[in-house]
Amino acid sequence: MDFRQRLAEIIEEKRDKLIQVSDNLWSYAELGFQEDKSARVLSDALEEEGFTVERGVGNIDTAFIGSFGSGKPVIAFLGEFDALSGLSQSGGVPEYNPVEMNGNGHGCGHNLLGTGSLAAAMALRYYMEENNIEGTVRYYGCPGEEIGGGKTFMVREGLFDDVDVAFTWHPGTRNSVMSTSTLACYEVYFKFKGKSAHAASSPHLGRSALDAIELMNVGVNYLREHIIPEARVHYAVTNSGGISPNVVQSESEVLYFVRAPRVSQTEEVYQRICDVARGAALMTGTEVEIDFASALSDVLPNTTLEKMMYDNFVELGVPQHDETDVEFAEKIRETISEADKNSEVKSNKGLAGKALSDLIDPFVPANGMMPGSTDVGDVSWIIPTAQCMTACESLGTELHTWQVVATGTTSVAHKGMLHAGKVMASTAMDVLNHPEVIEKAKAELVERQDGEQYVSPLPPELKEYTARIY
Amino acid sequence: MDFRQRLAEIIEEKRDKLIQVSDNLWSYAELGFQEDKSARVLSDALEEEGFTVERGVGNIDTAFIGSFGSGKPVIAFLGEFDALSGLSQSGGVPEYNPVEMNGNGHGCGHNLLGTGSLAAAMALRYYMEENNIEGTVRYYGCPGEEIGGGKTFMVREGLFDDVDVAFTWHPGTRNSVMSTSTLACYEVYFKFKGKSAHAASSPHLGRSALDAIELMNVGVNYLREHIIPEARVHYAVTNSGGISPNVVQSESEVLYFVRAPRVSQTEEVYQRICDVARGAALMTGTEVEIDFASALSDVLPNTTLEKMMYDNFVELGVPQHDETDVEFAEKIRETISEADKNSEVKSNKGLAGKALSDLIDPFVPANGMMPGSTDVGDVSWIIPTAQCMTACESLGTELHTWQVVATGTTSVAHKGMLHAGKVMASTAMDVLNHPEVIEKAKAELVERQDGEQYVSPLPPELKEYTARIY
Amino acid sequence: MDFRQRLAEIIEEKRDKLIQVSDNLWSYAELGFQEDKSARVLSDALEEEGFTVERGVGNIDTAFIGSFGSGKPVIAFLGEFDALSGLSQSGGVPEYNPVEMNGNGHGCGHNLLGTGSLAAAMALRYYMEENNIEGTVRYYGCPGEEIGGGKTFMVREGLFDDVDVAFTWHPGTRNSVMSTSTLACYEVYFKFKGKSAHAASSPHLGRSALDAIELMNVGVNYLREHIIPEARVHYAVTNSGGISPNVVQSESEVLYFVRAPRVSQTEEVYQRICDVARGAALMTGTEVEIDFASALSDVLPNTTLEKMMYDNFVELGVPQHDETDVEFAEKIRETISEADKNSEVKSNKGLAGKALSDLIDPFVPANGMMPGSTDVGDVSWIIPTAQCMTACESLGTELHTWQVVATGTTSVAHKGMLHAGKVMASTAMDVLNHPEVIEKAKAELVERQDGEQYVSPLPPELKEYTARIY
Amino acid sequence: MDFRQRLAEIIEEKRDKLIQVSDNLWSYAELGFQEDKSARVLSDALEEEGFTVERGVGNIDTAFIGSFGSGKPVIAFLGEFDALSGLSQSGGVPEYNPVEMNGNGHGCGHNLLGTGSLAAAMALRYYMEENNIEGTVRYYGCPGEEIGGGKTFMVREGLFDDVDVAFTWHPGTRNSVMSTSTLACYEVYFKFKGKSAHAASSPHLGRSALDAIELMNVGVNYLREHIIPEARVHYAVTNSGGISPNVVQSESEVLYFVRAPRVSQTEEVYQRICDVARGAALMTGTEVEIDFASALSDVLPNTTLEKMMYDNFVELGVPQHDETDVEFAEKIRETISEADKNSEVKSNKGLAGKALSDLIDPFVPANGMMPGSTDVGDVSWIIPTAQCMTACESLGTELHTWQVVATGTTSVAHKGMLHAGKVMASTAMDVLNHPEVIEKAKAELVERQDGEQYVSPLPPELKEYTARIY
Repeated sequence: MDFRQRLAEIIEEKRDKLIQVSDNLWSYAELGFQEDKSARVLSDALEEEGFTVERGVGNIDTAFIGSFGSGKPVIAFLGEFDALSGLSQSGGVPEYNPVEMNGNGHGCGHNLLGTGSLAAAMALRYYMEENNIEGTVRYYGCPGEEIGGGKTFMVREGLFDDVDVAFTWHPGTRNSVMSTSTLACYEVYFKFKGKSAHAASSPHLGRSALDAIELMNVGVNYLREHIIPEARVHYAVTNSGGISPNVVQSESEVLYFVRAPRVSQTEEVYQRICDVARGAALMTGTEVEIDFASALSDVLPNTTLEKMMYDNFVELGVPQHDETDVEFAEKIRETISEADKNSEVKSNKGLAGKALSDLIDPFVPANGMMPGSTDVGDVSWIIPTAQCMTACESLGTELHTWQVVATGTTSVAHKGMLHAGKVMASTAMDVLNHPEVIEKAKAELVERQDGEQYVSPLPPELKEYTARIY
Repeated sequence: MDFRQRLAEIIEEKRDKLIQVSDNLWSYAELGFQEDKSARVLSDALEEEGFTVERGVGNIDTAFIGSFGSGKPVIAFLGEFDALSGLSQSGGVPEYNPVEMNGNGHGCGHNLLGTGSLAAAMALRYYMEENNIEGTVRYYGCPGEEIGGGKTFMVREGLFDDVDVAFTWHPGTRNSVMSTSTLACYEVYFKFKGKSAHAASSPHLGRSALDAIELMNVGVNYLREHIIPEARVHYAVTNSGGISPNVVQSESEVLYFVRAPRVSQTEEVYQRICDVARGAALMTGTEVEIDFASALSDVLPNTTLEKMMYDNFVELGVPQHDETDVEFAEKIRETISEADKNSEVKSNKGLAGKALSDLIDPFVPANGMMPGSTDVGDVSWIIPTAQCMTACESLGTELHTWQVVATGTTSVAHKGMLHAGKVMASTAMDVLNHPEVIEKAKAELVERQDGEQYVSPLPPELKEYTARIY
Repeated sequence: MDFRQRLAEIIEEKRDKLIQVSDNLWSYAELGFQEDKSARVLSDALEEEGFTVERGVGNIDTAFIGSFGSGKPVIAFLGEFDALSGLSQSGGVPEYNPVEMNGNGHGCGHNLLGTGSLAAAMALRYYMEENNIEGTVRYYGCPGEEIGGGKTFMVREGLFDDVDVAFTWHPGTRNSVMSTSTLACYEVYFKFKGKSAHAASSPHLGRSALDAIELMNVGVNYLREHIIPEARVHYAVTNSGGISPNVVQSESEVLYFVRAPRVSQTEEVYQRICDVARGAALMTGTEVEIDFASALSDVLPNTTLEKMMYDNFVELGVPQHDETDVEFAEKIRETISEADKNSEVKSNKGLAGKALSDLIDPFVPANGMMPGSTDVGDVSWIIPTAQCMTACESLGTELHTWQVVATGTTSVAHKGMLHAGKVMASTAMDVLNHPEVIEKAKAELVERQDGEQYVSPLPPELKEYTARIY
Repeated sequence: MDFRQRLAEIIEEKRDKLIQVSDNLWSYAELGFQEDKSARVLSDALEEEGFTVERGVGNIDTAFIGSFGSGKPVIAFLGEFDALSGLSQSGGVPEYNPVEMNGNGHGCGHNLLGTGSLAAAMALRYYMEENNIEGTVRYYGCPGEEIGGGKTFMVREGLFDDVDVAFTWHPGTRNSVMSTSTLACYEVYFKFKGKSAHAASSPHLGRSALDAIELMNVGVNYLREHIIPEARVHYAVTNSGGISPNVVQSESEVLYFVRAPRVSQTEEVYQRICDVARGAALMTGTEVEIDFASALSDVLPNTTLEKMMYDNFVELGVPQHDETDVEFAEKIRETISEADKNSEVKSNKGLAGKALSDLIDPFVPANGMMPGSTDVGDVSWIIPTAQCMTACESLGTELHTWQVVATGTTSVAHKGMLHAGKVMASTAMDVLNHPEVIEKAKAELVERQDGEQYVSPLPPELKEYTARIY
């Protein structure tokens, strides 16, 4: 029996349990660095499957590592499990229907992500045991991918130092092995402090911190034209200074994400945004405090590992959808713009007329840049890392939308999740079978660093990520 | 014994109870139209003192009327008891020290206001009973002065229709009878609806509702130059669209207060602000919904009643402060700007060098316009109404600041509050002794209306005020 | 024969010449400090009438002083003659009809102002000669009232030091003696320097000076809410950085007028605007240069002189209009908003239904503040100064509009102008007849200064006003 | 003798004359559609060399066609000769030194462009005559490439309908054959009309057209985030409403360039900008008029012709620079940022340490998109068109900078210009030698149109381009 078949079999045996874990994560929908229940459900599951679990690693409450086996090589599967604010949505309902106004939701599918990687770790652990294979399997429970970037802190703490190769995945609309880089990203809070006053009788005595963030945002929107076009800057107002118009707002806060292809470029744009913030403070007679929250590096693809992952994916084929799956997907697609749907067909003509992908996209090595960010980047700068995507969403679905949340508890999503576990476990086993690949992948990593040494993008004075409760 | 002495005596007998009521209100610090506990504590106190209380009047849960006696004339005392958001502060602590971040606080002293009017109603009720005086004493429990304007709704419901004269007061830094008009005010929510998208990978597919409120606010700040200088416009962002920068914000809300000397001028400015909002929606490809929350009319002074109130104030003298009071007041003043302190001396040179006022300001009839708003305005357009202020705050203190909250539980505040009760009760008794004043005051009201009939500023389709929970 | 009759007679004898002078000024329509032809026509006229003229006084090319007689007292008539940009309009045409797009026009009626003062000086000079009256008559040719403030520079040069009393006037819609103060004013250029680049291919390499002025202006519009409500701030973009969108604009300039009741308040607002400018530079990576152009003080009224001027005005009556005058005025009024028309009736009910004022407004001493500025302020801070207005415009006409330009060559304007000459000459003669008034007026001046010494609002390093040619 | 050698020889024989033409164009520095003298000097030169010249073609005063020979094929050389505003600079002076403040300058090197194409046409004409070769040589004098897009209008007039292939070039820092597409572009004026008023005394009566363009620009800067990242939008304020701050500005105008890869995408962004403009009008109570000035299509590369051009370039080699050339180039480079210099080396490592390129860049067919625009696009949509670049500037020089103007009269520029003439003439001759290439190039054109027919991007109601004099 092919090792791939056996690994898939193990995952199917654990199917119900894995789905339960995923649906629990979905229902907790906890924000980054506050994933208490989510970390617990995953840690408990690892322990139940015989992993030794270290909780609260790297001084982060919701970070943990599950370990099985011993010795070299060390294979890491990366799991994420944090949700997004403002994306509450009823599961399995193909129309906009929030459970709770302004509630959280798994709009990026990390309930699936965390569980799919768990599936891979579990399958590999049993297979290695069954076959007396030397080596260590690790599951890294990585908090706050959407905000904070747990992996970046974990990398800085040295938690990955002895890992040889890492695997992870992301739910999406397609079946593919990803070989794109991403944007480095800074996450920074700008807090303004002014002076309150009665807004009707003595506004001239007030100094408005709300004015300050508005002017900062205006300034940054002007700045957009004058930074490199690959950069991305966006923000959320995390404190508007209160809800009473008749008090001049004395405090305010805005959270910025600043992104660019490399950390050095991100730093440059960031410095100019700091100048905009200082300008806004000058304009309004307020004071600004710049509170650096976190940072992520860009992803370095590793085509050595990716090619191997692609071959395993081809061997395993794609997730199989039934009529109910397709019907649900069709309904979701009725809520999706033509433009979004067309963009899929544009990049793969074989998808025309379909609601769910039944193809594996051709592998294109080192395939450009995806304008998002992930803390997988920091792992990928020190360890050869490969990522795949499986079809867990209707074609045309954008991440960070209610459609992802709605689909997250359906069989479409569950099938994609389990399949991702199979692809990752198989690739890992393939590496164990061909250990020379590890050296080749490490050599490629050095080459892709292009002479740069990895330096943590986190300022040394930033000791930990501070989750904010709003 | 002079009636004033006796009324004062009654209030002093109830001193502890009244202070307890005020301190309870202070600690509840409930926002407008959500004053459940505050309305209850006041209603209960009225009942304990023999008033008949009707709760939930005018279809407003936290509005109530306490009544004693029967027949004409009908004397009304107006009480307010709502707090402000974002002004949490420890009581009796003369430095900035919030109890709870972003918590509420009685930054406008309405704990004192509601209780001072209660003191007046109680004293008058006992005095009338003791002296077999015909007439009705009413306490109007009026929710949401800071937001919503309970009295405007209560006036529209006809709850004041049989009242002959009304009295109220406001805590402040001075001892005076007020004879200034105020600004009419509209309170309106503007809600924008856009389209969410991943802010890094496909911002071009998003339509930002946060952009819309920012551009609306920019537009309104440009508008300031081109409206009548007496108008006042200010706003608070009540929904910034979520705290995740990597989602294009699909919903947002901003609350505007639009003020001008008369309702017709307010309407004109308001229409132009609606155009700004529509412009912002056009600019951002979003949709705007305009949600009219409430409105207040300007105050018509009534010098007939005010002059009588002034004479009673002079008879009663000022609140007496001891060394501890002055020491606390001095400490508060260390946190107040020189400009604020100087402005008091500028308007009354007798206050130079003092921490607390020990003077009654001269009465200046129909003394200009105070650029704030109050729903007392709507009462004053249909019933002769007089208002006084007593020294409850250190000289130089601005309303809507933490200093007011800090002082609100001290003996300085309590003394001012009880004194206001005495001044109002005495003036009311004086009116009962000289009933011809009522007709004179009503004639003055007609004159000040200057040919305009009172029309409720509330749009007919607005059935009730909707309190928002954030 | 009453001296007033004789002075009026002299002016009527010179009627044609004076009208010619005024119409010449109207047609030159020269901007401030560039009034070469205008200064010449007035200087020449003075010399023709026997005045000794000193040209280019105070190091200003277009400033001049015409002098007649000798010894004390010294009576000054102040003349202005500069036009406004963008207000070109055909004379005598009661509909919008520019002679030249973006051309200049006498939208503030300074053609009349300069000539009316000339009429007064001429009449007084002949009357004094005829009656052997001791004293000196001076005509001050004062450039740049609209921009630059010639009088402020002339005051600093000491040119008014030996003057005893000063008279001037302004064309308007009413017959009145003015007793209002005005706003002090700073005129300041903010110049930004950035870096040009191709706006399509490398905008990230550019630093936009146009962005900088836009952001500065946004910042100032936000500032409006937080300065004293009596202040006024407005601006014009004097260099937008070029007309080619595909070059990032490397240079820009904006001219600000900053006004407040007193120079010290103006300074405070100005410092905050400088901070806004510096903030805009920070935001855009540009450099800002602050170029202080000029400044004006507020006007101190002098009721001693004004009362005397009012009595003379009453004696002389109002300008007499015939049917043609009224017909033209009616046509102009068809282009004026109801609001503008109503505002006249609101302040004087006697004007209802009229196209031209035929009344003298009652004299109200020290009558509030007019929210404009004039360099008459600097004269009024060191010399008792009185100003009147005569009806030269249709009721409802606003200054700085094409309607003023259109009317400026008609008999309506000419009659008002000559009448102003008569009122000023009569008042001056009255002062000569009652020299004790001079001391009384000087005592009032000291009182109105309220303990402040006049200090020139011009920074010492500003040597002269620089007229800019665009 | 190789035809290339002979063509080069002819150009060298005309060297002085050609340089004279170029230097004349440089000194005229006329803006688009106002190139009266420039068009004349080129037309005259063509006539002197035996071309038949039709002037004022396509109803455009400064458009012309010089023609020599007869019959098929018809070979077109495209010439441009317009300058840019605000880029005045002394020729041959390697530091910033404007001849005239805000004057024009040839910051895009069109003096060289127009003359280099003239060189090619002349050389080919003589060679064909010498060798009795059938066919027609045309020189198209195309006005307003920087503004207006003369070729787009000329294409719509059918002036290119019988042309078989077209050649042109652009001065730059490199020796290369270009095979990049460009952005389609719309040029649109937005004019706002408000209401003037005295800015200090009655700003509430004014409606500011300056506010309107500022708010439109703010709105567009917010829009940047929400359009496709390939789009480019930039603007210049062409009328700021006058230079007097004390008049509320009643008129204003801003010129926008809107660019995107295809005309349909440009249209989409343009419609949203129109909404922003309408939003700004709503916000300010002004009216907006949208005045479409011109439009350009994107460039379709033609690798068939380009490959042939590249081969000819390789045969001819690169322009030869001497020590003086290099010295001047070095001095220019001292004024250029490191980033600009590095970007050249990044794309071709062979250029490291050099001041002037002495290499031909490798030919990369259909090599992406250059984020500028050119009316060559409209020609390229109907006729196979090839373009080269020769090294006329120091490495690192950006177009639209004073450095280009400074270099435009030096031997560096002259050599590059003559060399471009040789490359184009040789390629054209090569086509004549291998006429089958024409059909192949036309077939490629059809393929690159990708099913779209060329439709003029000009709205039918736009009859002609209106040059504006500021």
